[in-house]
Amino acid sequence: METTVKTSVDQALSLINDSVRTLKPYHLTPETRSVKLNQNENPYDWDRNIKERAAAFFTERPWNRYPDFVPDSLKARLAAYVGATPDGIIVGNGSNEMLLVLMLSFAAKAKSVIICSPTFSVYRLLRDGMGTRPIDLSLTSDLQYDIPAVKKASAENPGAMLIICSPNNPVGNTVSEADLRDILNAHTGVCVLDQAYVEFGGFNAISLISEYKNLIIARTFSKAMAAAGLRLGYMIGAPEIIGEINKIKLPYNINFFTEHAASTILDNASTAEKSVAAIINERDRLYDDLKAMPFDDIYPSAANFILIRTRHKQKLFDHLKKCDILVRDVSSYHLLENCLRFSVGTPDENNLLRASLKSFFEQI
Amino acid sequence: METTVKTSVDQALSLINDSVRTLKPYHLTPETRSVKLNQNENPYDWDRNIKERAAAFFTERPWNRYPDFVPDSLKARLAAYVGATPDGIIVGNGSNEMLLVLMLSFAAKAKSVIICSPTFSVYRLLRDGMGTRPIDLSLTSDLQYDIPAVKKASAENPGAMLIICSPNNPVGNTVSEADLRDILNAHTGVCVLDQAYVEFGGFNAISLISEYKNLIIARTFSKAMAAAGLRLGYMIGAPEIIGEINKIKLPYNINFFTEHAASTILDNASTAEKSVAAIINERDRLYDDLKAMPFDDIYPSAANFILIRTRHKQKLFDHLKKCDILVRDVSSYHLLENCLRFSVGTPDENNLLRASLKSFFEQI
Repeated sequence: METTVKTSVDQALSLINDSVRTLKPYHLTPETRSVKLNQNENPYDWDRNIKERAAAFFTERPWNRYPDFVPDSLKARLAAYVGATPDGIIVGNGSNEMLLVLMLSFAAKAKSVIICSPTFSVYRLLRDGMGTRPIDLSLTSDLQYDIPAVKKASAENPGAMLIICSPNNPVGNTVSEADLRDILNAHTGVCVLDQAYVEFGGFNAISLISEYKNLIIARTFSKAMAAAGLRLGYMIGAPEIIGEINKIKLPYNINFFTEHAASTILDNASTAEKSVAAIINERDRLYDDLKAMPFDDIYPSAANFILIRTRHKQKLFDHLKKCDILVRDVSSYHLLENCLRFSVGTPDENNLLRASLKSFFEQI
Repeated sequence: METTVKTSVDQALSLINDSVRTLKPYHLTPETRSVKLNQNENPYDWDRNIKERAAAFFTERPWNRYPDFVPDSLKARLAAYVGATPDGIIVGNGSNEMLLVLMLSFAAKAKSVIICSPTFSVYRLLRDGMGTRPIDLSLTSDLQYDIPAVKKASAENPGAMLIICSPNNPVGNTVSEADLRDILNAHTGVCVLDQAYVEFGGFNAISLISEYKNLIIARTFSKAMAAAGLRLGYMIGAPEIIGEINKIKLPYNINFFTEHAASTILDNASTAEKSVAAIINERDRLYDDLKAMPFDDIYPSAANFILIRTRHKQKLFDHLKKCDILVRDVSSYHLLENCLRFSVGTPDENNLLRASLKSFFEQI
């Protein structure tokens, strides 16, 4: 029996928001190599005994019951960890969800969203996907925030939403305290400061929230806390503002296990701090070594990755894959022609990267 | 040193969308009782050996690495489970996230969203929070879908988004195949059919997707699959439409563990099917017993809960709490004055509920 189509694909497609139809799909071709330096992950997994303790909870705790309505204990621990009060914290399914919740809370009233490119691509996905008016600024030619341009855009678009990433992915540049204050003194809208990489460097802006109630800081467990697989992000802001944002956040957005594992991680924050210190040390050594190599550009980084530019970009990318190393090709980003981003790995992984880069430059 | 506030709380609050400011917070006072019949959870937890197998994966798998970019294996299993193709499946952090993604995909173009109350409160949270024009229909006085009213609203609002919940929470009523076809033949916008409870009864509408490409069905692991703690929801639709919706879905929205545990659950779907059969049996027995009690109303249910009405609502609610039973007070919902909702528990839990109800009616 043949099925008669009563509502066609074309009719159904015509119902989808134009802002979504015109989005380019966010694709990542799944590739595996032994040395994975393509996603700015922390290369150090958690100790087996810590994971086993968490897994025991996973076996005990009923799966059939909903998570806590408000993860109070996790919020209290996060508050203590970052130096805030629990009612100034909101947690989500990765910082991605937190950014979405901010868009839902502010974008319609802000009318436009200021993004400084190159930066983390999810900001643009959300802004453009939701059809909010885009204001696209550029970093300077040496890939730093263009503070006068940001202030000018703020003045010209009162109430606009501003997203700043510091340390900024995929470049590694930061905004200083003086520059951030300069921006905040001029900016009347909400300012979202994504500090996903702040444990690795740059100015930690939490203390500014008491002065600027329009400042909201996003953080994550995916980088310094070595838990990208668990999906936990959080935001810090003035309690009155966080209380409003909470109203549009989805109920039960944290599964019980991520909630519990995140608490376990915070119990062992000193372990994460040690791995962060090791990564910072490795980053700085790697930067010095890369600086001596014939790249066209190499950019200072306050994060756990290093951005380089080379006219041999594609050849180098392929060579590294042959050496069993996966890095990120970011050459399609604004201003980043011929650029690759190397996440900082373990000493062994970085040594393999060094050796592979040396062999590449010797052969070309 | 005193901090000068440069941007005040009032200034910051004024930046938040009016649609969010005017939302009533979705609150659930955390209360615990031994017998938890307030959240329509499946009362049967997963077997310890299944949980232990999943926990072993949790210990092995690196926490520091991102989840799969696309959870292909889980999508393939879900497709086989529901009788769809993997490219017609999208998975999310609970069906809540799926509903949000639908709003992001369709609401702006739909301009208005039709909701038939009483129903699941998250639809209204999302619609009103996003500031989409509300079209509020009412169930009939005997709490059934008012099909002529739905068709009239569809005709008067071409392209509107329509949300139907079947079986419908918190009532238990359903839409039949004939009525759904009747609606879909009249409705030109997208139709979201939330079938969170479909394993417990009512018409499973998956086969209609091939005829109506504007039909999208939401499902969940929180009810029949006994995994409310894990947060996994999914949707089924025409592959071309799901492909577009995927573009606005957040990347990495499923943590690696929920992805793995959901696959483990699908490996053991027959266990879930047995618990569902037991719950259906208990629901029907409980309904017969409750029907003999002096409630003002009791409503037939195709889900894992039963809705009742009693002029002694508050007294009964408090009495049950004293008997260590927590049920849901839904009396603030449209049309549900004096109503309570009892989730169906284990036979022991249901026996305690029966006995407590009997003692209540004997004493008043």
